[in-house]
Amino acid sequence: VVTTAFEREIREQPAVLGRLLDGAWPAAEAAAAELRRARPAFVTIAARGSSDNAARYAQYLLGARHRLAVALAAPSLHTRYGAPPDLSAAVAIGISQSGRSPDVLAVIEDARREGAPAIAITNDPGSPLARAATVAFDLGAGEETAVAASKSYTAQLAALAMISAALGGGREELAALPDAVTRALAAPPPIELGARCVVLGRGYNLSTAHEIALKLKETAYVQAEACSWTDFLHGPAAMVEAGLPVILVAPSSPLAGDVPALLDLLEERGARAAVISDRADLLARGAALPVPALPEWLSPIAAVVPGQLLALAQATARGVDPDAPRGLTKVTETR
Amino acid sequence: VVTTAFEREIREQPAVLGRLLDGAWPAAEAAAAELRRARPAFVTIAARGSSDNAARYAQYLLGARHRLAVALAAPSLHTRYGAPPDLSAAVAIGISQSGRSPDVLAVIEDARREGAPAIAITNDPGSPLARAATVAFDLGAGEETAVAASKSYTAQLAALAMISAALGGGREELAALPDAVTRALAAPPPIELGARCVVLGRGYNLSTAHEIALKLKETAYVQAEACSWTDFLHGPAAMVEAGLPVILVAPSSPLAGDVPALLDLLEERGARAAVISDRADLLARGAALPVPALPEWLSPIAAVVPGQLLALAQATARGVDPDAPRGLTKVTETR
Repeated sequence: VVTTAFEREIREQPAVLGRLLDGAWPAAEAAAAELRRARPAFVTIAARGSSDNAARYAQYLLGARHRLAVALAAPSLHTRYGAPPDLSAAVAIGISQSGRSPDVLAVIEDARREGAPAIAITNDPGSPLARAATVAFDLGAGEETAVAASKSYTAQLAALAMISAALGGGREELAALPDAVTRALAAPPPIELGARCVVLGRGYNLSTAHEIALKLKETAYVQAEACSWTDFLHGPAAMVEAGLPVILVAPSSPLAGDVPALLDLLEERGARAAVISDRADLLARGAALPVPALPEWLSPIAAVVPGQLLALAQATARGVDPDAPRGLTKVTETR
Repeated sequence: VVTTAFEREIREQPAVLGRLLDGAWPAAEAAAAELRRARPAFVTIAARGSSDNAARYAQYLLGARHRLAVALAAPSLHTRYGAPPDLSAAVAIGISQSGRSPDVLAVIEDARREGAPAIAITNDPGSPLARAATVAFDLGAGEETAVAASKSYTAQLAALAMISAALGGGREELAALPDAVTRALAAPPPIELGARCVVLGRGYNLSTAHEIALKLKETAYVQAEACSWTDFLHGPAAMVEAGLPVILVAPSSPLAGDVPALLDLLEERGARAAVISDRADLLARGAALPVPALPEWLSPIAAVVPGQLLALAQATARGVDPDAPRGLTKVTETR
């Protein structure tokens, strides 16, 4: 029995992705045309919260597939220091479910003022962010009422992937997404977390690690540390103790070869590893959170799903209402 | 009695800063000349660990003072995906204490291959990174033997500030740094941390929050979550419970006006606040970690010091050797 909006919205994801793939190619083509026309020296992306994790995904997507350097914006330079960086050689992308985050809007408005094109990815085509941009990509995910984003996040990733496909090919590969997410939804999360855990990813799925950690923090009040496993080895690895849950986001990729050595380190310390992957050899080395195989550039769209389910299960186990975490509101009006 | 290299190196910081200000202006001028000549569309910075926190500082420094957009590099695009972003319109900056981090080197080499100038900030002028750059800035901090960086971190910040001063003025303000750090060293850290805590900053001092959290993780095995206080309100704030230690890095700045409302939220939840600031009104609202007043753009160089002392005190209290945290090495050879 589905009792929360958070769970209902998690389960809507295959349908949302299907609708996007049916109807949003004209928007993807328009965004791709803007990038092709502008030939920017770099892309800057403004976003907060889950949308900022979609921006992390875009850094790898645009870098690896299109050789575009990505600067994640520091909104306070625009809203508070009164000294925005020169974005005249950039294309700006604003990502916001509501399209109403004042600081994300400020970055896009500054970019437009300097003559840079701007692409808005929002769930509300009438929002201030969509109206401020030169191209608006409507996620059409339907109203999202849980404070914790789920379907809007995977829709943002899919929108970015569609723009990438319109720019550089691979469109046919996206057709696998609704079914892959459906299958990822079938896997129950078999692990218990305590008050804290670590979530590791790298490359395209660094975004996934950050998004899973954010879900755990905001819906289940678990202090989840997200980190690239490379940065992890530059310091945070020292804090891993016996019993600490560590979730590895490791779908097949050129980086997955790093994972066995990481699992050795975790085993040595007695940490409790869980693995999100399509690879049986990696799944066998910890609590298994299986996801279907996808091309790496699309894998974050399915790999986040076991993390969403895990956050839901932890919230339920703790008696927390994931639709309305304490102290949070759906539109956070930071400046 | 000083018994660890970590403590000795923390206490060497005023002398290291004094040497830099005596001898490194020619290097700062050379780096500034390179930036002036290249007029880059953006700056990309490659770094790992503590050096990556210096890169976060540079994002605000170069943005607010010079209107330069900064893209923090994703090294795996260079080392693993075989698809480095086009950096031909950029100036690249590599920051590494040893100058031997293979992935930082790879970013700089790719930038050079595309004709972009590159500035290396290292503690070893003979290192591969220094040799690959068009301008090498030698920190001259003396050998750093503790695995956890301290004096090399504040020297990196000072080097960046000197480059900024050479570009845009304010050189006379740097003279206050050695004395300010000496005074910050005198303040004992009056708080006890448990297994976890949160460290919040914003703007220039987001770097400080990340660096303090990293020190706590690597030397004292405390799971410290670093976050901009704005991003914090977009989700992680939900997990704040009674008794959770929360360190606010809040020297005087245009952003410090946000802090009273944050302290109200922490008080409401029964969290244990500690405040790093020069402002008596903010210090009075939690455990006080006072630092001398500095212009905001220089404040991170003193504001990190109470965090270093706190990590040292926590490590000592737990019987951890901060010179050699488990599983870490001084030069981390990630690719």
